[in-house]
Amino acid sequence: MFKSELVAAAGERLKAARTVSIVSHARPDGDAVGSALGLGLALEAAGKTVTVALADGVPVAFRHLAGAARVVSQGDPHADCRILVDCGDIDRGGKAWLPEWPVDINIDHHKTNTRFAAVNIVVPEAVATAAMLAELLPLWGFEITPQAAEALLTGMLTDTIGFRTSNVTPHTLRLAASLVERGANLSELYFKALVERSFESLRYWGRGLSRVQMEGGLVWTSLTLEDRKVSGYSGNDDADLVGYLPTVRGAAVGVIFVEQPDGTVKVSWRARPGWDVSTLAVRFGGGGHAPAAGATIEGALQEVQEAVLAATRELLIHAQHSIEEGEH
Amino acid sequence: MFKSELVAAAGERLKAARTVSIVSHARPDGDAVGSALGLGLALEAAGKTVTVALADGVPVAFRHLAGAARVVSQGDPHADCRILVDCGDIDRGGKAWLPEWPVDINIDHHKTNTRFAAVNIVVPEAVATAAMLAELLPLWGFEITPQAAEALLTGMLTDTIGFRTSNVTPHTLRLAASLVERGANLSELYFKALVERSFESLRYWGRGLSRVQMEGGLVWTSLTLEDRKVSGYSGNDDADLVGYLPTVRGAAVGVIFVEQPDGTVKVSWRARPGWDVSTLAVRFGGGGHAPAAGATIEGALQEVQEAVLAATRELLIHAQHSIEEGEH
Repeated sequence: MFKSELVAAAGERLKAARTVSIVSHARPDGDAVGSALGLGLALEAAGKTVTVALADGVPVAFRHLAGAARVVSQGDPHADCRILVDCGDIDRGGKAWLPEWPVDINIDHHKTNTRFAAVNIVVPEAVATAAMLAELLPLWGFEITPQAAEALLTGMLTDTIGFRTSNVTPHTLRLAASLVERGANLSELYFKALVERSFESLRYWGRGLSRVQMEGGLVWTSLTLEDRKVSGYSGNDDADLVGYLPTVRGAAVGVIFVEQPDGTVKVSWRARPGWDVSTLAVRFGGGGHAPAAGATIEGALQEVQEAVLAATRELLIHAQHSIEEGEH
Repeated sequence: MFKSELVAAAGERLKAARTVSIVSHARPDGDAVGSALGLGLALEAAGKTVTVALADGVPVAFRHLAGAARVVSQGDPHADCRILVDCGDIDRGGKAWLPEWPVDINIDHHKTNTRFAAVNIVVPEAVATAAMLAELLPLWGFEITPQAAEALLTGMLTDTIGFRTSNVTPHTLRLAASLVERGANLSELYFKALVERSFESLRYWGRGLSRVQMEGGLVWTSLTLEDRKVSGYSGNDDADLVGYLPTVRGAAVGVIFVEQPDGTVKVSWRARPGWDVSTLAVRFGGGGHAPAAGATIEGALQEVQEAVLAATRELLIHAQHSIEEGEH
């Protein structure tokens, strides 16, 4: 999985360092938080002085992790060893890491990684950057403490949505088992990272789900400014509701429309394997990947909804024809 | 984990049998279906003539498993070897197995198991009966085929809700890894068993969630006959919505009220670890366990709701006092 000369080069830099600055990406997810804290806690246990920086702080779902309260908003370019984790390019750190600052070690699993550091350890087939660190730390001779194991397992859990993405292998499960053996409480971490949610988001979901519609393989709903107000939900997003739409039996694509106060509508598409919604998002000025894409479109909710649904129906019909003709 | 003399005794009966009848419990869940089919497919691959019987057939979420279409509604008391799996007592088979019929082998993980067979292999610490079989089959010398592995992994996934119950251990994860290696597609099985749902149930959820309320640690909502009609949901239950209520941040107990056409209300409680709602259910003529209980109560929705919420509030306040006094 790892190139041994890169592992050795990174290990030497780490062992020689007295101060270490670890940074992960803006708008952090569980792998950003978990890989940064897991690495930091393990290095701290080995006697290093470590700071972990995240431009947007630690989301509430991960604040129970050790070290979360000590996360700062900017990295230290003068540290002996400067590490970016889970960042596909150097801009991903946001305000926590300026692009002109040098990076010693880049540890990541995004296949688009731009190799911006002195030592780049990039493994696209890894399920999470935290999973890479669960293997790298012992190779470097650093002990994974119980608290570091909890952070790393959190990163694995969130990036695999609880071991259910298609890249999970027997090796992934065994790696998770080894972190549980090192002291991570699987069921508690799972609950905090993936199950627990705010009361307001549940009410907000309710309003969206009570209006959900299905037509062929297309499932959609909308969330209005009124829904947000009535439910008390504070975000301007869909509270991750869109992910549930393609889980409907018979669904191929889910779309959600979130009305914004500035006269635009945030549109998110999610597709089952075999469908590509990224081209649709690009057509409406957005972007994304085959299974998950989004765009912010000017116009009234009803108007945007009609245009987007028409285009999405077309994609489904066209792709269906392609499949029937054996082009896929 | 297993007593070797019991494993040997069961193995001898299995090896000597030409015909095998396998039965699991009525209203089958994923472990009932998965353990019965997994055992059946492995024995079939070893040349036995096998029938699998379930009183209520195979739920739609498990019909993709091999052998599901061949499941019959009654077991064969004249088979050379008669096996009940995942049944705490002999009545659990429902119409598929009459209590007066003899049972050769009883394989189960319910701690209340009544040891009703000639050979009883009961392991309460096992996460699923399917997990027991994943270990027993190789001990008996039967190969776990890819199709058997899929059935067994399904049983493990559903009883652990995707590896997130508190009894999941490193051993559980490694056992799952071995089933993936034998050919089970984890992400597909996970999706079918735990993620995919009907369009109608999603709309029905929406109506319940849009009215959800929270007061202290108590989260509740109701589902009316009108909700069922409007959403087109065909069951008389809550479509498993109640499980989401105690996942709210700050919640201790969730309660759902489902209006019935016969003038009763089905009430379900779910509690976080540390709370016991079974006594409440018993007080209202129902039953259950500490974290999950239910009762069917006569009366109008509003009236039942008020009585049950008052009693549940009392439990929360009393237990809170008990905790503060250090009694817990």
